[in-house]
Amino acid sequence: MTIKEFFKRDRFAVLIGAELIETGEGYAKARMLVEERHLNGGDICQGGALFTLADLAYAAAVNSHGTLTFSITSNITYVRSARKGEWIYAEAKEVVNHHSVPFCEVRLTNEVGDLIATFTGSAYRKKNIQLDLD
Amino acid sequence: MTIKEFFKRDRFAVLIGAELIETGEGYAKARMLVEERHLNGGDICQGGALFTLADLAYAAAVNSHGTLTFSITSNITYVRSARKGEWIYAEAKEVVNHHSVPFCEVRLTNEVGDLIATFTGSAYRKKNIQLDLD
Amino acid sequence: MTIKEFFKRDRFAVLIGAELIETGEGYAKARMLVEERHLNGGDICQGGALFTLADLAYAAAVNSHGTLTFSITSNITYVRSARKGEWIYAEAKEVVNHHSVPFCEVRLTNEVGDLIATFTGSAYRKKNIQLDLD
Amino acid sequence: MTIKEFFKRDRFAVLIGAELIETGEGYAKARMLVEERHLNGGDICQGGALFTLADLAYAAAVNSHGTLTFSITSNITYVRSARKGEWIYAEAKEVVNHHSVPFCEVRLTNEVGDLIATFTGSAYRKKNIQLDLD
Repeated sequence: MTIKEFFKRDRFAVLIGAELIETGEGYAKARMLVEERHLNGGDICQGGALFTLADLAYAAAVNSHGTLTFSITSNITYVRSARKGEWIYAEAKEVVNHHSVPFCEVRLTNEVGDLIATFTGSAYRKKNIQLDLD
Repeated sequence: MTIKEFFKRDRFAVLIGAELIETGEGYAKARMLVEERHLNGGDICQGGALFTLADLAYAAAVNSHGTLTFSITSNITYVRSARKGEWIYAEAKEVVNHHSVPFCEVRLTNEVGDLIATFTGSAYRKKNIQLDLD
Repeated sequence: MTIKEFFKRDRFAVLIGAELIETGEGYAKARMLVEERHLNGGDICQGGALFTLADLAYAAAVNSHGTLTFSITSNITYVRSARKGEWIYAEAKEVVNHHSVPFCEVRLTNEVGDLIATFTGSAYRKKNIQLDLD
Repeated sequence: MTIKEFFKRDRFAVLIGAELIETGEGYAKARMLVEERHLNGGDICQGGALFTLADLAYAAAVNSHGTLTFSITSNITYVRSARKGEWIYAEAKEVVNHHSVPFCEVRLTNEVGDLIATFTGSAYRKKNIQLDLD
């Protein structure tokens, strides 16, 4: 199973239309098209939709080494509104591949490269649980 | 329009089944039933679903005074897995009702009161935009 | 050795005048008198001084069970300026006494109970290193 | 007055030996030599000392445009211990020069470029208070 296949089992990411488009060691990129269903009361993309997109890329990056890795805590800072019709990209880089508590940064941008949000997260590796990755 | 009616326009919260059940000045409570569609690859509730539930309660609390208030940055820390079939509650309290940058804490618990996650956020009031609240 | 004695070895906390005044299981309280030397360019208490005070209480709370516990990540949100001549108190409560990654909240208040800042932190227990506590 | 001169008034940064070595528009670099006085009970540099170093660079970066800018909330994630005798460098880049709520990232590294900690912060500009900068 590849890491992309593993994350197809993430039903919430599938529900909201977030998908992984690139993966590597300590790296992942995901995207989502902002649609009517992602909007909040102010007609911009809801923070939770952006968070979920970032979290998908983050989870793929920190799990890429094959050890099951859970999120401990994450932070998102909003920079610019994401609007209906925009593709949003989330690029995750595992800054620290620590054996127990890795740290990963994610940048969210739109198609023209404007920064939409930044996301950081610390995670915890379950050393005794290996993912069945290729 | 009540604050609950205003947040019915939050299409993303509606999509994922998060709903406000209580509101007040600087206060809000929301809930969500964890279903198959909220699960991640590890068969527990995806972090983005919990984040969105918390964010709904948070947004209702910080917007309760009638001035449009945007999120600047939010943090979520996961304490315990939320599983399919559990109702999760998010209770938001605006700790600081600042004229420009309020601060709000949200606690997520399950039906028996176990802490699932904590969420904090700083927001920014758009002083010139008033919500049409009752 | 008590936890208070252990933290007397924290030379940085001693340098800035932060001291533990109460300790317990998953709990600690520290205080600091804001003096000229703690001020920033704007003549209010520097954020790093408040952070250090909070961090002392936090470290005492998460280390109170006798297993060496390191900070992974911490967040501080400033609510109100602390001024020269004020005593600031930091009260830390370990919300989650997890075997690996505990979570702790700290509230900073002044003498009259005004909230000055809030601090949260996630930490990591080094299971194989026990502190020599009474 | 230059921004460096302005920050010489930061008595807490002076107390702990943190000093600005480079400044620019939305940019600053600071350094500190880890000495006995910066150590915690575990004989490594206390988190509050690293936080203060980062905060100095951060404050210089977000105040570099001449409008007084206060910190709202900051996050620090520790990656590697800083030890006695090491010079630690904090490099701050204002990622978002927003008119009200800028966002800034700081990386802390040692002399050989190892990442020690990362720091992010959101701040608030007091539009009616201008610093008297050259």
